[in-house]
Amino acid sequence: MPSYRAPVADVHFLLTQVFGWERLANLPGFSDATPDVVEAILGEAAKLCEDVLQPLNLPGDREGCKRAVDGSVSVPKGFKAAYDAFADGGWIGLAADPQYGGQGLPYTLGAVVNEFASSANMAFAMYPGLSQGALAALLTHGSEAQKALYAPKLISGAWSGTMNLTEPHCGTDLGLIKTRAVPLGDGAYALTGQKIFISAGEHDLTENIVHLVLARIAGAPAGTKGISLFIVPKFLPDAQANPGARNGVSCGSIEHKMGIHGNSTCVMNYDGATGWLIGEENRGLNAMFVMMNEARLGVAIQGLAQSEVAYQNAAAYARDRLQGRALSGAKVPEKQADPIIVHPDVRRMLLEMRAFNEAARALVLWTALKSDIAHRSGEEAQIRAADDMLGLMTPVLKGVLTDTGFANTVKAQQVFGGHGYVGEWGMEQFVRDARIAMIYEGANGIQALDLVGRKLPKGGGRAVMTFFNEVGACLKEKEGEAALAPFTNGLKTGLDHLQKATMWLMQNAMAKPDNAGAGSTDYMHLFGLVAMGYMWLRIADAALARKAADPSLAEAMNAKLIAGTFFMQRMMPETAAHLARISAGADILMAMPADAF
Amino acid sequence: MPSYRAPVADVHFLLTQVFGWERLANLPGFSDATPDVVEAILGEAAKLCEDVLQPLNLPGDREGCKRAVDGSVSVPKGFKAAYDAFADGGWIGLAADPQYGGQGLPYTLGAVVNEFASSANMAFAMYPGLSQGALAALLTHGSEAQKALYAPKLISGAWSGTMNLTEPHCGTDLGLIKTRAVPLGDGAYALTGQKIFISAGEHDLTENIVHLVLARIAGAPAGTKGISLFIVPKFLPDAQANPGARNGVSCGSIEHKMGIHGNSTCVMNYDGATGWLIGEENRGLNAMFVMMNEARLGVAIQGLAQSEVAYQNAAAYARDRLQGRALSGAKVPEKQADPIIVHPDVRRMLLEMRAFNEAARALVLWTALKSDIAHRSGEEAQIRAADDMLGLMTPVLKGVLTDTGFANTVKAQQVFGGHGYVGEWGMEQFVRDARIAMIYEGANGIQALDLVGRKLPKGGGRAVMTFFNEVGACLKEKEGEAALAPFTNGLKTGLDHLQKATMWLMQNAMAKPDNAGAGSTDYMHLFGLVAMGYMWLRIADAALARKAADPSLAEAMNAKLIAGTFFMQRMMPETAAHLARISAGADILMAMPADAF
Repeated sequence: MPSYRAPVADVHFLLTQVFGWERLANLPGFSDATPDVVEAILGEAAKLCEDVLQPLNLPGDREGCKRAVDGSVSVPKGFKAAYDAFADGGWIGLAADPQYGGQGLPYTLGAVVNEFASSANMAFAMYPGLSQGALAALLTHGSEAQKALYAPKLISGAWSGTMNLTEPHCGTDLGLIKTRAVPLGDGAYALTGQKIFISAGEHDLTENIVHLVLARIAGAPAGTKGISLFIVPKFLPDAQANPGARNGVSCGSIEHKMGIHGNSTCVMNYDGATGWLIGEENRGLNAMFVMMNEARLGVAIQGLAQSEVAYQNAAAYARDRLQGRALSGAKVPEKQADPIIVHPDVRRMLLEMRAFNEAARALVLWTALKSDIAHRSGEEAQIRAADDMLGLMTPVLKGVLTDTGFANTVKAQQVFGGHGYVGEWGMEQFVRDARIAMIYEGANGIQALDLVGRKLPKGGGRAVMTFFNEVGACLKEKEGEAALAPFTNGLKTGLDHLQKATMWLMQNAMAKPDNAGAGSTDYMHLFGLVAMGYMWLRIADAALARKAADPSLAEAMNAKLIAGTFFMQRMMPETAAHLARISAGADILMAMPADAF
Repeated sequence: MPSYRAPVADVHFLLTQVFGWERLANLPGFSDATPDVVEAILGEAAKLCEDVLQPLNLPGDREGCKRAVDGSVSVPKGFKAAYDAFADGGWIGLAADPQYGGQGLPYTLGAVVNEFASSANMAFAMYPGLSQGALAALLTHGSEAQKALYAPKLISGAWSGTMNLTEPHCGTDLGLIKTRAVPLGDGAYALTGQKIFISAGEHDLTENIVHLVLARIAGAPAGTKGISLFIVPKFLPDAQANPGARNGVSCGSIEHKMGIHGNSTCVMNYDGATGWLIGEENRGLNAMFVMMNEARLGVAIQGLAQSEVAYQNAAAYARDRLQGRALSGAKVPEKQADPIIVHPDVRRMLLEMRAFNEAARALVLWTALKSDIAHRSGEEAQIRAADDMLGLMTPVLKGVLTDTGFANTVKAQQVFGGHGYVGEWGMEQFVRDARIAMIYEGANGIQALDLVGRKLPKGGGRAVMTFFNEVGACLKEKEGEAALAPFTNGLKTGLDHLQKATMWLMQNAMAKPDNAGAGSTDYMHLFGLVAMGYMWLRIADAALARKAADPSLAEAMNAKLIAGTFFMQRMMPETAAHLARISAGADILMAMPADAF
C-alpha cells in the first residue's frame, strides 16, 4: 500500500522564506493568515489528507463508480464519509467570499490544500475541486439572486458542481457545440443535447448537483460567438434552496477510463432540462473561461501532486529494497545486498522528480499569489501586472506540470521494477490517474498554442517582458555570490535560450503562423524550465540564508541546494535542444502530405 | 476499435534495398528466402496478425485471464483458436532447426513476424514468444535427449515454454535466489520455492507447459555462482513425449497488472516438483542468458510494435477528426472544421513516432541480421564481429525502443484527446501494455548499466570502435552528396557527441564507477539516437536511389526522406543534452544522503 506525507514544511518555507508572505498582510484575507495560522491550517489539511483521503485511494480505484439501471451513480465505499469530513472542515470554501459562507482566506492556501488532497486521492479531490470551479464562474458572472441561491450550497458542500462543455463531436472546438436552449418565456430555458466526459456528473455524495452547461440559444450566431452558459440543477430548488422536482438531466452511462476510477465520468443527457442563463446571451465562453483558468491551475497542481506522492513512495522503496551491490563496493556488507538507492541511476530518477517537485510547487505558489494580488489588491498597476503574469503562467503550468508530472509517475513506477507494474503497490495507479491531467481542461497542445498564440503577443509582449525583466534583475542581483554560482550560471544560459526562442518566434511566426505551432510545445517546456530555474535560484538564496541563520536547518537546506544544483546540471541543459527544435521551424512538418501519414 | 496494417512494404524495402538481403544468400536458411519468398511469407504473417490476432486484442484486455480455485487458468475467448492457427502455420518454429521440425528460415524473418504479432496483440504474442525463448536456451544448453524430447513439442506449439527467474525478494539480483533443488538420485531433482511475475505460467492453450527454472542445488556456492537451470514440465512426459502425471508445480495466483491482461502472469509454486538440470551445475545463469539475450531483442521489438500500431491509429484519427481551423486559414472550408492533421503540433507528435518507428525497425533488422550471421556464418572473423555488434546493440535496443516506444503510445493517446483516455478506442491499452516492456527482461536501467559497464569496455572497446568505424566510413562515403546533406550533417554532429561521451566515460569511469552509472541511461539514449540516425542515412540513400530508378515510387520514398529529415532536425539535437548530462558526472547524485530523499 502506498503512503503519503503532505510537504507542510516545504510549503511553509516557500511562503515565508522565499515569497515573503508577511509582506502581503495588507491584502484582504492575508492579515489573519500569519505564518503560525498558516502552519496550523496546513497541518489540519495534511491530517485530513493523510489519514482520511489517502487510505481510500487504492480501494477507490479498484471499486470504481457504479451506475444503476435507474441512472443513479454510487461512488466507492468511504468516499461519502470522507466528503462530509472535507466539507464540514470548511475546505471547499477556504478561499471563498465570507458573504456566502466562505472563509475568505488566500487562494494560495486553497491551492496548497488542493495539492495535498490530489496527492492523497486525486479521484476524490476532483469532486470538491469541480465545485470550486463552478463557484468561481458563478461568483464572477452570476446574478445576485443566482449567487445567493447557489453559492452557499456549493461552499458548504451540500451541493456539488460540474462543467459541461464537451460533446461527442467537439472537445477543443467549442464552436461546434450542438446542445440547444429554448427560451420558456419565464426567464428559464429548456436544454436538450448530450455532453460527454463530465467529471462528477452524477454521484451520491450530495443532495443536489449544479451543472454549468454550454449550449446554443435558438437563433444564436454560428461558432463560438453563439454559445451561452446555463446553470442546470439536478433537482430544481425553491427560493429557499430546498431541492424540489427532478430536472430533465440524467447520466446515460459512465465512461470506462484508464484511471481516476473513483471519480464518476459521465455521459450526461439533457432532455428539455430547465436551466437559467449565467451572464449574457452568447457570451458563455467568456464566463466559462473564468472557470477554466482556475481549473487549469488546479489541473497543473494535479500533475505536481501525483509526481510528489509517486516520488515519496519511490524514495521509500529505494531505501528499503535490497538488490545488488553499489558500483563502488558494498555499502551494507552485513546485509545480503545494498539498498538500491546506492545506484546512481536510481538516484537520477529520484532527483529528477525531487528537483521538479520543489520547483513546480514554488511556481504554483508564486502564480497563485499573483492570482490573490490580481483579485484582492486595490492598486490598478499591481492588479494588471499580476493578472498579466497569471495569464502567461497558466498554460505553462498546466502543460509542463502535467507532462512532467506524468513522466515522473512513470519514473517512480520504474524504481519498483516489476512491483511497479502490479496493482498492490499503487504505483501504476499514479501513472493512470496522472495521465488524464495532460488531456482535460485543454489538451497540452492547446496550452502551448494558447501560450505562443495568445499570451505571448498580448499587449505587445508585455507579460513576457515583465517576466524577463524580473528574472534578469534577480540574476543581476545574485550574480556576484559565489555560493549561488551554479544557480545563476545555469539560469543565465536557460534564460538566454528562452529569449532567443522568443525572438525567433517574433521574427518568424507573424508571416507564417505554422512556425508558432511547430515550436509551441517546445517553447512551453523551455519556458517551464526557465521558470523553474528561476524558482531554484530564489529557493537556493533563501536556503543559504536560513542555513546561516540557523545551523540546525543545515541538513534540510543542503538537500534543497543539492536538488537545485542537480536541476541546473541535468535538467536545464534541455533548453538548448528546445531552442534547436523551435528554430527548425514548420517546413519539414508541413511537407508531408496528409495521406502519407 | 483500433485497427492495424502490418508494414510489409517497409520491411521489404529495408531488407532488399537497405541491407542487401540477396548478398546473404550464402548463409544457411537464406538461400531459399528470395525476395519473392520473403514477400509471400510476410504477407501471410500480416494476414494472420491483422485478421485473427488484432481483433482479439481489445476484448482480450477487457476479459483478461481467470484462475479457477483448482489453480487452472483460462485465457480470453478466442485465444485458443488463434493460438492453434499460429502454431499450425509453423510460425513458432519459423527460424528453428529443421531437425526438430522448425522451418530453418532466418531469425531476421522471425523478428519481423514478432513485430507484426506484437502490434496486433502483444499479450497473445507473448505465449509463442516465450516458447521461442525457452527453445533457444534448450537448444544451446540442453542434452541431446532433452532436445529430442522437448524441442519438437515447443516448435509445433503443442507445448509452451516459460522462464522462471524472479522471486518475491529478488528480480535484478539473481544471486539472491532461494528456490532449492534436491537431487533425487536418479538424475532428477526436486524443486521447492516460489517464483513471481511468470508470464504464461499457467493457461489452457497447450497440453503441457515447460518451465525453465533457476534454482540453487543444496550445497551450492552462494550468489550467482550457485544457480542452476532446470527444466520442469507441468505434466511429466514419457520417452515418447506423452504427458503423464501432474508435476508438483502450480499457479498460486495471477497478478493484477496494469496491462497485458490477456497474458497470464502467475505466481508459481514449486512444491517438490521434479526437474532436470539443463547444462552444468551452478552454470544456470549462463544458460539463462542465452534465453535472455534473445528475449531482450524480443522485448525491444514489443516497444517498436506498440509504437507502430499506436501511430497508425493516431494518424488515422488525425486525418478524420474535424476540430478547429488551420493556423494558416481554413483548409477544408466546406466542412464545419479542418481535420486536426492540419496542425503543426499534431504533425509533430505523428512525425516523432513515424521517424522513430522506421529507424527502429531498421535497427532491429540490422541487429537481427547480425544474429543470423553470428549463428549461421562459417567464418570466424565474421562471427566475432557480428556477435560483438549483437552484444553491443541488444541493451541499446531493449532500453531505447521500449522507453521511446512507450513514450510514443502516450503521444498517440494524446492525439485522441479525451477519447484516448477511455477504453473504447483502444489507445490507453497500448500505453498500459507498452509499459511493461521497460521493466521486464532487465529493467532499462540495467540495460544501460550492461551497456556502459560490460558491452562498452569488452575487448578493449572493440565493438564500439567497430561501430564508430562503420558509421564514420558511411559518413565519409556519402558526405559529398548534396541530397543527403541533412542526413550526413545531423549524423556527424550526433556521432561527435557520442564519441565525446564515450571518451568522457573512458577517462572518468575507471577510477570512479559511479560516473558510469550516473551517465548510463543518457549514454544509452545517445547511442540509440546515433544508431537510428545511421539507419536514417542508409534509408535516405536507398530511398533516393529507388526514386531515381522508379519514379512511381516517388511519393513513398519522399515520405521516408521527410520523416528522416524531421529526425535530424528535431530528434538528433537531443544528443547535445545527453552529452551535457553525462559530462556532469556523479558527484551531485551521490551528495544527497540516502535518508534525505
